Amino acid sequence: MKSWPYLYNQWYATAWGSEIGRELTRRDLLDEPIVLYRTQGGVVTALSDRCLHHHYPLHRGCLVGDHVECGYHGFTYDPSGRCVRIPGQDHIPEKARLRTYPVVEKWKWIWVWMGDPEKADEALIPNFFWLDDPAWEAVGSSIQLQARHQLLNENLLDLSHVEFVHRGSISSSNLSEHPIETKVEGQKVRISRIMKNIEAAPLFVKTMGLPDRIDRWQVEEFQPPCYHVVHVSAGSPGTRLDDSCQYKVINAIVPERPNRSRYLWSVSRNYRREEKWVSDYLQEAVQRVFMEDVAVCEAQEAMISSLPNPPTEMLAKMDTGVTSARRILAEMKLAESQETSGQSHA
Amino acid sequence: MKSWPYLYNQWYATAWGSEIGRELTRRDLLDEPIVLYRTQGGVVTALSDRCLHHHYPLHRGCLVGDHVECGYHGFTYDPSGRCVRIPGQDHIPEKARLRTYPVVEKWKWIWVWMGDPEKADEALIPNFFWLDDPAWEAVGSSIQLQARHQLLNENLLDLSHVEFVHRGSISSSNLSEHPIETKVEGQKVRISRIMKNIEAAPLFVKTMGLPDRIDRWQVEEFQPPCYHVVHVSAGSPGTRLDDSCQYKVINAIVPERPNRSRYLWSVSRNYRREEKWVSDYLQEAVQRVFMEDVAVCEAQEAMISSLPNPPTEMLAKMDTGVTSARRILAEMKLAESQETSGQSHA
Amino acid sequence: MKSWPYLYNQWYATAWGSEIGRELTRRDLLDEPIVLYRTQGGVVTALSDRCLHHHYPLHRGCLVGDHVECGYHGFTYDPSGRCVRIPGQDHIPEKARLRTYPVVEKWKWIWVWMGDPEKADEALIPNFFWLDDPAWEAVGSSIQLQARHQLLNENLLDLSHVEFVHRGSISSSNLSEHPIETKVEGQKVRISRIMKNIEAAPLFVKTMGLPDRIDRWQVEEFQPPCYHVVHVSAGSPGTRLDDSCQYKVINAIVPERPNRSRYLWSVSRNYRREEKWVSDYLQEAVQRVFMEDVAVCEAQEAMISSLPNPPTEMLAKMDTGVTSARRILAEMKLAESQETSGQSHA
Repeated sequence: MKSWPYLYNQWYATAWGSEIGRELTRRDLLDEPIVLYRTQGGVVTALSDRCLHHHYPLHRGCLVGDHVECGYHGFTYDPSGRCVRIPGQDHIPEKARLRTYPVVEKWKWIWVWMGDPEKADEALIPNFFWLDDPAWEAVGSSIQLQARHQLLNENLLDLSHVEFVHRGSISSSNLSEHPIETKVEGQKVRISRIMKNIEAAPLFVKTMGLPDRIDRWQVEEFQPPCYHVVHVSAGSPGTRLDDSCQYKVINAIVPERPNRSRYLWSVSRNYRREEKWVSDYLQEAVQRVFMEDVAVCEAQEAMISSLPNPPTEMLAKMDTGVTSARRILAEMKLAESQETSGQSHA
Repeated sequence: MKSWPYLYNQWYATAWGSEIGRELTRRDLLDEPIVLYRTQGGVVTALSDRCLHHHYPLHRGCLVGDHVECGYHGFTYDPSGRCVRIPGQDHIPEKARLRTYPVVEKWKWIWVWMGDPEKADEALIPNFFWLDDPAWEAVGSSIQLQARHQLLNENLLDLSHVEFVHRGSISSSNLSEHPIETKVEGQKVRISRIMKNIEAAPLFVKTMGLPDRIDRWQVEEFQPPCYHVVHVSAGSPGTRLDDSCQYKVINAIVPERPNRSRYLWSVSRNYRREEKWVSDYLQEAVQRVFMEDVAVCEAQEAMISSLPNPPTEMLAKMDTGVTSARRILAEMKLAESQETSGQSHA
Repeated sequence: MKSWPYLYNQWYATAWGSEIGRELTRRDLLDEPIVLYRTQGGVVTALSDRCLHHHYPLHRGCLVGDHVECGYHGFTYDPSGRCVRIPGQDHIPEKARLRTYPVVEKWKWIWVWMGDPEKADEALIPNFFWLDDPAWEAVGSSIQLQARHQLLNENLLDLSHVEFVHRGSISSSNLSEHPIETKVEGQKVRISRIMKNIEAAPLFVKTMGLPDRIDRWQVEEFQPPCYHVVHVSAGSPGTRLDDSCQYKVINAIVPERPNRSRYLWSVSRNYRREEKWVSDYLQEAVQRVFMEDVAVCEAQEAMISSLPNPPTEMLAKMDTGVTSARRILAEMKLAESQETSGQSHA
């Protein structure tokens, strides 16, 4: 299996803004331990979670104003990572600096930049305005899964799993009869399936008030390193797309450790926005659906990890999205490596 | 410790027939993941549990008629392992074939052949007719243990453990005073101990209605790769062997993983066959006894695994059965390797 | 991080005398499995826990008089490690000897010598007379922790952690303003902090009946390979040291496995010796405090183990004790290695 590389010069969505407050919160990204917190001014800060002194996890310490005090011997760091106190001594070496990570709070999510801070351009953050636009109502959650992030990312790159994994929730029978179109646009992969006059899955009937048969548009856009927006639209047969009920599923599946990931998802809808029961229903129903995907990926991870040398996969037509993404990521990794090695020669 | 090799051209008992039905059941054998099920016609089928597509465990999918449908993207396989459906495409490559394993249901057990299918001769299955002969009444179970299969196999090759491990259940004091005779007959090892006028262990008094002192014959036959039949006969002192109460303990201890095994056992008796309380008593009592052996092997496994380099064992007279079996297995492995390398040159 | 080496020619305190009786007790030291028991005469014996026969853990067997009988096949060993019985055979090979460890019961603790038995001089056991001197009253316990022994040893070599880890128990605010003096005396490290007219921590007020402000002397002596005595004295401001209430905290943190240790601690006091509630209070309160240290070390261990290459530590003034101990241990290890290699050439 061709593995997804770690890309460093990227923004990684690692938490909902609501998950980060005045408590020290530990998150891992690309194998690096990170502590997150909000300053008194409300700004989210991301520092290495490892105290320079004796490797103690800083998230077990406490916040003193905007400073992080190590819970072991009191080394204290300001939000820029600079050590501002070493108990028992006046001089603090210049090099006493924690690694700090560029961090931005946008679209209600916390985005951490893992590579060269000089390149941390906020404009590179994907446009997920649906997450906090008042014209859309969003629900969502944050899940840790025991599987490499490639697995759940590839799950989302292949819509054909819906019929098998989500039977009885968002699937309809014979979904697979509807052709999937996959297009590569630069570094993005766009996968679409238009289904006219199909049996409506329960979720559509329930929350959209649609009849038993519907037209359904499903367009997914993958954007490296690990983001997916699924544009779902539905209406009675014959409805124009503009008049349809729509929701956007925003997905981030970020690598925490080689065999562990974090999954942030949201569903933002443009219909029945004020009806709380719809929010509650979607929160619960979509979480249930995604936990089906999580279970699939964890079972796959267990199988792959147990095989000394996993044999070649037999790729199929349905894998066009998967193979396109693999190729894009490999090219990006190559470019990133060349750039980095160029820098080190400069 | 001289380790038991994996022998491939062998039948492995991996389940009771009653454990395999119209549900997909996962079993591991010699480090290979296998899915077992019964066709509509009742025939047991054994396929690789790893979908060719993305390594998803097939046992998490479902049976469609006699076909296995992968629970992830719907790749579907017939009982011969041939892929008969790839959703979204018409052409199915010729090489899209799961490994299938020769499988036979015999003596109420499911036997899987792990080597060259050409050599899978049903006549090589050990004769365990006591398991389903109406003249015998059988109980038994199926246990997974966290220990390499060598440990429980060698446990059964050395009857002298009975006095120490099974004190209070099937042992009698001073059992070890009765000499053990070990004979090698071809690839089989035969270990016998005849005990005249000994104190009767509780099981004999209880289920056979024997007095406090008995004559007891115990003859064990080991047959590669991992089978043991223990012929136990008992009667009042002076009883002829033909008039004794007899039971056969049939044991299979098959390797699942390097440090994990499956233990199938059965006790078949020729006395009080219709008395259900005797069946219940034996089922419960023998299971308890064998769980004592399982606990021993798991403790041994923990010790061995924790030692970076387990030192040499100090073998004793009582290990004649153990060393004979090790020698036989090593010779068989050598023969198997030569045969296989011969094939690959052909 | 410069790791603490295993030193072999040393006494290791591995249990309270009260923990070892007529049951077989398993302890690990320096990665070696050891079984401990008391003979009928009350003498503590330490043998390898691995039966020579098939690596079965001897502590799962039983004591027959003063002999250890293996619970698997009955190999039996006397307290000198000599095999005295092999069931089924008369001849016992001369080399059938378990490794035995010199062991001494002193100051209520069990001390095991892990190196060359010729060098096991009882006089090398540290003088911890406070543990059983009638002028002192002792409480204490025995804790297993999932962390390398270096971590808790170094915790005790740096008093500055008290203010941060033990806030609200034995700490007082601004403890760190009081200078710590570290002196190396041969192979010992002596760390002292004298605190005049400080706020009294709850433990002092409660058990010593002292006022809210006190004078407190704290002198710690580290002695290789893993022993610490903390001499704590306290009184009303202006009290002479001789008139103070005193307690001694005796600590042994011995390596069991690379990432596992055992912690024996005791608090011996010279005040209110007959008042049981003080003993109960100290037992409970000090255990709670030390569990705070254990939690710190386990979190540190998790961080260190998770880093592929833990970077260099940034040592501070407060680490004088830590670095002195590391240097002393490295010198001792070098001397021990030279000595041993000298022997092997002899």
